[in-house]
Amino acid sequence: MNFKLKNDTFLRALLRQPTEYTPLWMMRQAGRYLPEYRATRKTAGSFLGLCKNPDFATEVTLQPLERFPLDAAILFSDILTVPDAMGLGLYFSEGEGPKFERTVRSEADLKALRTPDIGTDLKYVTDAVAQIRKSLDGSVPLIGFSGSPWTLACYMVEGGGSDDYAKVKTMAYSNPGLMHQLLSKTADTVTQYLNAQIEAGAQAVMIFDSWGGALSHAAYHEFSLPYMQRIVDGLIKEKDGVRIPSIIFTKGGGLWIESIANTGCDAVGLDWTMDIGIARQKVGHKVALQGNIDPTVLFAPPDAIRNEVEKVLGSYGFGSGHVFNLGHGISQHTNPEHAAALVAAVHELSRKYH
Amino acid sequence: MNFKLKNDTFLRALLRQPTEYTPLWMMRQAGRYLPEYRATRKTAGSFLGLCKNPDFATEVTLQPLERFPLDAAILFSDILTVPDAMGLGLYFSEGEGPKFERTVRSEADLKALRTPDIGTDLKYVTDAVAQIRKSLDGSVPLIGFSGSPWTLACYMVEGGGSDDYAKVKTMAYSNPGLMHQLLSKTADTVTQYLNAQIEAGAQAVMIFDSWGGALSHAAYHEFSLPYMQRIVDGLIKEKDGVRIPSIIFTKGGGLWIESIANTGCDAVGLDWTMDIGIARQKVGHKVALQGNIDPTVLFAPPDAIRNEVEKVLGSYGFGSGHVFNLGHGISQHTNPEHAAALVAAVHELSRKYH
Repeated sequence: MNFKLKNDTFLRALLRQPTEYTPLWMMRQAGRYLPEYRATRKTAGSFLGLCKNPDFATEVTLQPLERFPLDAAILFSDILTVPDAMGLGLYFSEGEGPKFERTVRSEADLKALRTPDIGTDLKYVTDAVAQIRKSLDGSVPLIGFSGSPWTLACYMVEGGGSDDYAKVKTMAYSNPGLMHQLLSKTADTVTQYLNAQIEAGAQAVMIFDSWGGALSHAAYHEFSLPYMQRIVDGLIKEKDGVRIPSIIFTKGGGLWIESIANTGCDAVGLDWTMDIGIARQKVGHKVALQGNIDPTVLFAPPDAIRNEVEKVLGSYGFGSGHVFNLGHGISQHTNPEHAAALVAAVHELSRKYH
Repeated sequence: MNFKLKNDTFLRALLRQPTEYTPLWMMRQAGRYLPEYRATRKTAGSFLGLCKNPDFATEVTLQPLERFPLDAAILFSDILTVPDAMGLGLYFSEGEGPKFERTVRSEADLKALRTPDIGTDLKYVTDAVAQIRKSLDGSVPLIGFSGSPWTLACYMVEGGGSDDYAKVKTMAYSNPGLMHQLLSKTADTVTQYLNAQIEAGAQAVMIFDSWGGALSHAAYHEFSLPYMQRIVDGLIKEKDGVRIPSIIFTKGGGLWIESIANTGCDAVGLDWTMDIGIARQKVGHKVALQGNIDPTVLFAPPDAIRNEVEKVLGSYGFGSGHVFNLGHGISQHTNPEHAAALVAAVHELSRKYH
């Protein structure tokens, strides 16, 4: 596993080392907007069938890299593998998103939560990581990931997606002690899970805090950020003499970017609402930034996409420390040719800033 | 209409004049969480039946004031009355939210948009304003309101609510000229509409930019903020020798609070994600602030509600310029006794800051 990467631009940008251009990948780059993904998913029978089979997971992880010269691959998996391994029974009902058979709403529910054995319960994930890494054959780095404790807790308490997070927030405000126990247990599991991905071959890791932005300033700093901080503290920092960078992405977390940058993570993911130049001013040289074009820009024609790419690149400005990405996952309704236009525009237009 | 208000605390706070305590009202305070509202709505037959009948609109506007010692009343209406009057055909399908029979997606659609005659097409709104004002009998001020041009355009282009605003954003990125024409026409109509509400008796006006927060920094400053600025510029500033304050509320707009404060509005509404003390530091003495407790706090027991009220009051700190509110509309699942606890806590705990 100690071979040299052919393209390590992504890792260098995360560590704010010089690069020749701005590297990019796209959140949810292996996904439904690609016909080849839809074909594999059909063969696998279901979304979970894709996630739980390392062959299928490897196949779909590599699909976008065969189409576009992306600078990183990201493990194909789901953020809810962890609560599933904790015994909640993940399932997908058509058109309704993820659901859990059991929820965590009481002390008894918390006690009933399993402490998963990552090496067996989540072996399908680490096996996929190892297989993808092997298949990548040193072309680009592989990103591992997990949901944040707060985001996982949202699903564990609500039992699925939610518009208002009423149940989990009610728990946080009414019984903060119970909430902290759940978050603590989840944070410890996530730390082990990400370290297992690193051991299996992940060369960078990202924490997706999809629902941290639904919290108030005070609640974010009590219920979400400290648990991501704890994970960052517990991560393997180096493997085979190479730094393993970590990225924290709180969707809707622009207001808290300074606190996020202070966790010790290497990079902060930005959604599209914050100007990336303002973000850079706020975090200085502390972290790299990853983002942040609005994914709906990809519905516009290629020349409009180019314009918007130039705006983001220009706002970030000169020098390293920028990984280009969408501000959120690519929509399933995106024309793959528009994704290709984005990739080409970033690679071409960013050279003048390096 | 030139009588003195018995309680003008709300208006004084908006103008950053001294008050004895922090005034409050609650967004969507006349709503489904109140059994008396549900009863009136049943009698009216539908939501639009409530909005379009000044007797019913008056009745439901006053209901929360009979229960709680709130410091302001807000006109009961819908933000979509304007596009309806522009000819799009507003209707509500059960469980699906508002919809329009026609949408605006082309030059031809734009040309087909009516320029409403506010005095006739929206007479049911100004009649309601006049009747509510009379019924309030000088007890507390009456707030008029409208949706922002961008937010109205979202509905006009999408034809209803949306998760990703794909159609309206695609228009903004692909055909910005058409988008600006639509926003311009809508802004002019909204200005007339709010001025008609002021003429009919509204003592403050609020612009609800519910979907501005879905935009990128650059797009917000191109497609949403300038049109709210134009409205603020065109508002009647004084009536019968009394200042008519304006409030701008962009949900998810915390990152842009300085730009919003520079429009010339008197107050900025905040959702619950931004710390109100940080917001105050950013805007200085330029504007008052309205907000910003998370409405889900009301699902917690009264002592937890008190704690959270104290946090918001303490964060704002000493002196005038704060109108307490929720960071978003009150949930239909709220226990009215919890709303009562919020009102009591704000009135009691805020005195020490004045």
